[in-house]
Amino acid sequence: MIFRTISSLQDQVLVWRNEKAKIGLVPTMGALHEGHLSLVHEARRQCDRVVVSIFVNPTQFNNLSDLSAYPRSEHEDIQLLSGIDAVFIPSPQEMYPYGSISRLHVGGIAERLEGQHRPGHFDGMATVVMKLFNISQAHVGFFGEKDWQQLQVVRQMVLDFNHIISITGCETVRDPDGLAKSSRNKRLSQDERHKASMLFQALSLTADSIKNGKDVDISEKIGKNILQKSGFDRIDYFEVCYAQTLVPAADLTKPCRVLAAVWLGDIRLIDNVSVPKL
Amino acid sequence: MIFRTISSLQDQVLVWRNEKAKIGLVPTMGALHEGHLSLVHEARRQCDRVVVSIFVNPTQFNNLSDLSAYPRSEHEDIQLLSGIDAVFIPSPQEMYPYGSISRLHVGGIAERLEGQHRPGHFDGMATVVMKLFNISQAHVGFFGEKDWQQLQVVRQMVLDFNHIISITGCETVRDPDGLAKSSRNKRLSQDERHKASMLFQALSLTADSIKNGKDVDISEKIGKNILQKSGFDRIDYFEVCYAQTLVPAADLTKPCRVLAAVWLGDIRLIDNVSVPKL
Repeated sequence: MIFRTISSLQDQVLVWRNEKAKIGLVPTMGALHEGHLSLVHEARRQCDRVVVSIFVNPTQFNNLSDLSAYPRSEHEDIQLLSGIDAVFIPSPQEMYPYGSISRLHVGGIAERLEGQHRPGHFDGMATVVMKLFNISQAHVGFFGEKDWQQLQVVRQMVLDFNHIISITGCETVRDPDGLAKSSRNKRLSQDERHKASMLFQALSLTADSIKNGKDVDISEKIGKNILQKSGFDRIDYFEVCYAQTLVPAADLTKPCRVLAAVWLGDIRLIDNVSVPKL
Repeated sequence: MIFRTISSLQDQVLVWRNEKAKIGLVPTMGALHEGHLSLVHEARRQCDRVVVSIFVNPTQFNNLSDLSAYPRSEHEDIQLLSGIDAVFIPSPQEMYPYGSISRLHVGGIAERLEGQHRPGHFDGMATVVMKLFNISQAHVGFFGEKDWQQLQVVRQMVLDFNHIISITGCETVRDPDGLAKSSRNKRLSQDERHKASMLFQALSLTADSIKNGKDVDISEKIGKNILQKSGFDRIDYFEVCYAQTLVPAADLTKPCRVLAAVWLGDIRLIDNVSVPKL
């Protein structure tokens, strides 16, 4: 069922809450792909009732042209979500009736990588996610590991504000050549789409290099060289970090992650892989 | 019963939630007086279970000497709260185990008056109040009208983050001479205590002047003159504002409030009164 107002969804979740139903929330910005659908699948597996939100949140775009170019496919999205208990599609006016002057800032973990390259992005994301948590009254929130730093920021936000929701991270879904599913992939030209798969290759070879005992500098260089040879236009970052705190990794026996953000033309792609345990 | 950890209180409120009890929260910084007790009384009247928190929140003090001078009387506070379902007394370490690097900013209404004179104060207040809302899982939060702007900031925060709690404001409790009950009153010398009562006189005469048809400028001057003659050391602000938005009032047929912050030595007092309907 489709809900376009906060109050109508709140009325519905109150009924579910009174029935002691376990509620799952999958926040999305629409343009749904198999990555989103795997989150929905996991939410249905864990929960009695599932809310999927579709909201291209303007406050988490630090770049207006990225916001206007962001793919929108509401009609197809709704079809993909047929049978879901609640599809929440609010307007920006519904979400920000007083403007977006209040915001939530998650410190520490949100400052580096995406936080550094997309100023304000995580504040906007955290604010809208907190709103969606409260509107949906969900017991569990589902987030993709493809946005690894976002997942960690959400986990930290839940801790820092003592929210009672629990967070489930779901594995990245990839095309056969390794490219992580992303709504922004739709905007890639055929040539760019071909180059794009090398991002996963670069991340994987860096992770393998560390597993094989090479140090961080050498391992990062292996990945960056692949990216440069593959014709990426810019690398925002390509780093081996601790998986939870996202500071540069030194002790490689701890859980680590290789994270990258790169550009093909005006399209920015992010991805990450875990470093196999040494 | 006294709770000093978040998890122990959460376990208790979960039981109450499952019993469908209506939970009320009275957030305080301790040094309890009749103003706090009137909030507790109202919470007991409206709710099945009442949580009173006592936490001198370091992040809402913009001034370290104010924080260290803030009166603390835990033993007496606990005695005053005997019979209350839950008295929550966490340590700063319990509330901020990761430091206080995440924060919530309420825009617009929080920028002027207190927001201007106490930078960061409302961010710290809003952050800890959101945490207390989530920890206590309260249905209703109780706040005193003495901190009128704080009450409006909390209301705006609830709206902006779609929190499901409802907010009840309670009337200011005053000494016979009009001085609003405040924990900081304990720090006044006998001479300062005598002068302090003139704050309520100044506010009331300004409100009366507006009710009698005088304009804002003349009415504010009446109040400020009283303050100056009474020996207050400084006036941070003395303003007639719209009651809800706290911007300077122009249309006096709308609900208005006279708000002031003044200094006696190193002690800062705030108070406010409503302007009777024209």
